[in-house]
Amino acid sequence: PPRPDVPGYALGQATLARAPYSMADLTALQKSMLFGADDVAALRQSKAILADQTEAILDVWYGFVASTPELVVFFGDTRSGQPDANYLGAVRKRFALWILDTADATYDQAWLDWQYEIGLRHNRLKKNKTDGAHGPAQVDFRYLPALTIPITTTLKPFLAKKGASVADVERMHAAWVKAVLMQAILWSHPYIKDGEF
Amino acid sequence: PPRPDVPGYALGQATLARAPYSMADLTALQKSMLFGADDVAALRQSKAILADQTEAILDVWYGFVASTPELVVFFGDTRSGQPDANYLGAVRKRFALWILDTADATYDQAWLDWQYEIGLRHNRLKKNKTDGAHGPAQVDFRYLPALTIPITTTLKPFLAKKGASVADVERMHAAWVKAVLMQAILWSHPYIKDGEF
Ligand code: HEM
Ligand code: HEM
Repeated sequence: PPRPDVPGYALGQATLARAPYSMADLTALQKSMLFGADDVAALRQSKAILADQTEAILDVWYGFVASTPELVVFFGDTRSGQPDANYLGAVRKRFALWILDTADATYDQAWLDWQYEIGLRHNRLKKNKTDGAHGPAQVDFRYLPALTIPITTTLKPFLAKKGASVADVERMHAAWVKAVLMQAILWSHPYIKDGEF
Repeated sequence: PPRPDVPGYALGQATLARAPYSMADLTALQKSMLFGADDVAALRQSKAILADQTEAILDVWYGFVASTPELVVFFGDTRSGQPDANYLGAVRKRFALWILDTADATYDQAWLDWQYEIGLRHNRLKKNKTDGAHGPAQVDFRYLPALTIPITTTLKPFLAKKGASVADVERMHAAWVKAVLMQAILWSHPYIKDGEF
C-alpha cells in the first residue's frame, strides 16, 4: 500500500521498472535455498512479534553500522567526510517498512520489482538519488550478502521477546536468514556482469 | 599441503594467481559478518567431528544437487544432456578436502588465492577446464550464495553426531554459515562488474 508519509518507499508503485528476473526464477532460487511454505509461515508468525519492536531493532542495526567504519562510510557525505544524518534518517523510515514487508512474505511481481529497485539503490545506478544524498557512488557488492549475518543474528533476541517457544524462535530465525539472503541475492543483480546472474 | 592423489586441488600451489582482494579486505569483510575468534575456534572444533564423516556429508549434498534440476544442470554434459559422472566424481574429491580446509580456518594469502581460484572455476573464466568437462559455461551467480543454506542446514545433524553439547552444535553451525557465506562472497568476484566488488 502507498505510504506517502515515507518518502521514497515504492513497493507496489506502477512506476517501478520490471525486474530482470521472473517469478519462475524466484521459485527456482527458493528451491535451491530450501525455502518453503514453513518458512513463509514462520516469517508471518514473526510479524506480530516484531511489529512494535521495529524502532528498537533499527537502533541495534544502525548502532552496528555506525560503529563499523567500513560500513558507515556508505552513509557518509563525501563533501564533509561525515555520516549524513538526514540520509541515515530517510533510509531508516523505509528500513522499518522493509522489516514488515519481509515478515509479510508476499512474493509477487510487485515485490519482485521492488527488490530490483532496492538493488539499484545500493548500486551506482541509483544510490543517493532517492534522498538527494551526497554519499559514495555505491555500496560495495561484498557487504550486501555479508550483512545478512549481523541483521539476522541481532534480530534473534527480538524474536524471542514475546514468549514464542525456543523451537519457534529457531524456525523464525532460520526463515529470516533465508529471506534476507534471498533478497541480498536479488539486489545483487545490478552488480553482476551481463548474462552471469 | 599438496595432494597429488586429488587432481586439480591447488591450495598452497605457487602457480595460483594472486587474489584481487587483500588480507585487509578479508578482515573488513569478517568484521561486517561478526566473524571472530570464537567462530575460528568453533570451526576448528568441528574438524575432528566432521573428519570421518565427509563421505556421508557429500552423499547428502550430492543427493540434494542431483534431485534439484536447476542445480544438477551445471554438472551436465552439454553434448549428451545428462549429468557427467566423471565430472561429478572429480569435483567430489576436492569437495571433501574443502570441508576439512573450511574447518581448518587458516586465513592467509595462500587461502585467499585459492578462494579466488575456486571462484574462477565456477565462473565462465575457468569452469570445466580443471576436469576437461563439457558442462555449461558457468554456474549462475545467484546459486553461489544461495547454496550456503542447504550446505549448512544439512551439515548440522553431522555436527551433532559426536556428542557435542547443543550449545556447541549451535556455535559450530553458526560459524559454518558465516564461513561458507564468506567464501561464496569471495568466489563471486569474477562475476562482479569492474570496481563494484
Ligand atoms: C542484507 C543486507 C542489507 C539489507 C537488508 C539492507 C536494507 C536496506 C533497505 C530496506 C534500504 C531502503 C531501501 C529503500 O526503500 O530505498 C536500504 C538502503 C540503503 N542501504 Fe541497505 N541493506 C543491506 C545492505 C547494506 C549495506 C552492507 C550497506 C552499507 C552500509 C547498506 C547501505 C544502504 C544505503 C546507503 C542505503 C540508501 C541507498 C540510497 O541512496 O537510496 N545497505 N538498505
Ligand atoms: C556455497 C556454495 C558452494 C560451495 C561451498 C561449493 C563448493 C565447491 C567446491 C569445494 C568445488 C571444488 C573446487 C575445486 O577444488 O576445484 C566446487 C566446484 C564446482 N561446483 Fe561448487 N560450490 C558451491 C556452489 C555451487 C553451485 C550453486 C553449483 C551449481 C550446481 C556448483 C557447482 C560446481 C561445479 C560445476 C564445480 C566444478 C567447477 C569446475 O568445472 O572446475 N557449486 N564447488
